[in-house]
Amino acid sequence: MARRTGLEGLTIGAIADEMKMSKTGVFARFGSREKLLIEALKLYREHFEQAVFHSSLEEQLGLPRLTEVFTRWVQFEADDSGFGSVYISAAAEYENRSGAVRDVLVAMIKDWQTWLLHYIKTAIELGHLPAKLEAEVLVYEIYGLMLGLHHDMRLLRLPGSVQRAMRSFHLLLEAHGVRQAKAPGATVSRKRIGKSMAAENSQTVVLSHV
Amino acid sequence: MARRTGLEGLTIGAIADEMKMSKTGVFARFGSREKLLIEALKLYREHFEQAVFHSSLEEQLGLPRLTEVFTRWVQFEADDSGFGSVYISAAAEYENRSGAVRDVLVAMIKDWQTWLLHYIKTAIELGHLPAKLEAEVLVYEIYGLMLGLHHDMRLLRLPGSVQRAMRSFHLLLEAHGVRQAKAPGATVSRKRIGKSMAAENSQTVVLSHV
Repeated sequence: MARRTGLEGLTIGAIADEMKMSKTGVFARFGSREKLLIEALKLYREHFEQAVFHSSLEEQLGLPRLTEVFTRWVQFEADDSGFGSVYISAAAEYENRSGAVRDVLVAMIKDWQTWLLHYIKTAIELGHLPAKLEAEVLVYEIYGLMLGLHHDMRLLRLPGSVQRAMRSFHLLLEAHGVRQAKAPGATVSRKRIGKSMAAENSQTVVLSHV
Repeated sequence: MARRTGLEGLTIGAIADEMKMSKTGVFARFGSREKLLIEALKLYREHFEQAVFHSSLEEQLGLPRLTEVFTRWVQFEADDSGFGSVYISAAAEYENRSGAVRDVLVAMIKDWQTWLLHYIKTAIELGHLPAKLEAEVLVYEIYGLMLGLHHDMRLLRLPGSVQRAMRSFHLLLEAHGVRQAKAPGATVSRKRIGKSMAAENSQTVVLSHV
């Protein structure tokens, strides 16, 4: 429900309707709407991490892992019935507020960005990314690509958004001095990507590490 | 009010309070909440275009103009008492809805992106950007930088967000093969940028066109 309506739509009443329970019953289970929203965020986090993060652990550390994470993140954003990312839609809902829900959301996003930072730094250590690269800048840029993907798919409904995101990711790496042909182990799952793109009338995706 | 509370907060009742008018009086003036929101968007557009677009017209066409527009856009996003961009916050509010307000919002954002596209294409024609550059991809990337700036400043409240946005813009141009030293007329208003950054404890901004 949160992915469909935003956290805003997740009220005690709406859940009671959906679950065919009484409002009192839903309330009793969570104690407050705030706690309900926090539980929803925790559940979302589990789904998100399972799909994007844990599934990437089989990929080699460094640039291959980072690329895999980005690819799965794009898939997660794009594929799931178009419901989009709760982190991203909730960001706008909570940017002007304070309170426990916002705090939990910010902590989760920062955790996620810290993981991205960690992967980038590991890629630097392994020599897959240049030593002079500022990891924080790359995190910002990668997150921006994802915000743009969300925006273009969900508000503007532009065709080709997924391909643009993947291309831009690789352009960005090149911008930072990555010669992707040289990244070891970069055999990145073209099949999986091809599949997720099918929905968007995929042409060729720029994931070929020649 | 829209910049402070999002379009969501802009109700007939809230405006009546703010203006010390009766709800009936406010309603009579606009006819419906939908029309009120559309009028608010039009007014916002005027402010936005005045600050970002018209003020950049004195800059040379091509890369200097594009850089000026981006710089003023960052200023607009960052400076105005932290209220942020209505286009960006409304994007999340309206991504799951349909109706006239969404349609107007989407049309305005597309118009704006068309202007960016036009500037990029002009820069290509003038030889400031390489001929092989895909202008649509650059629009997506630049918009992503702005979405990321909004996200980092307003939700995460990360320090240094403005500098990161400016650096990333220039890295991005380099990624697309721009040697900025060669851009003619690139004497871009360092003073103005310096001023707007003061609030964020500016170090050096990467706008030096050596």
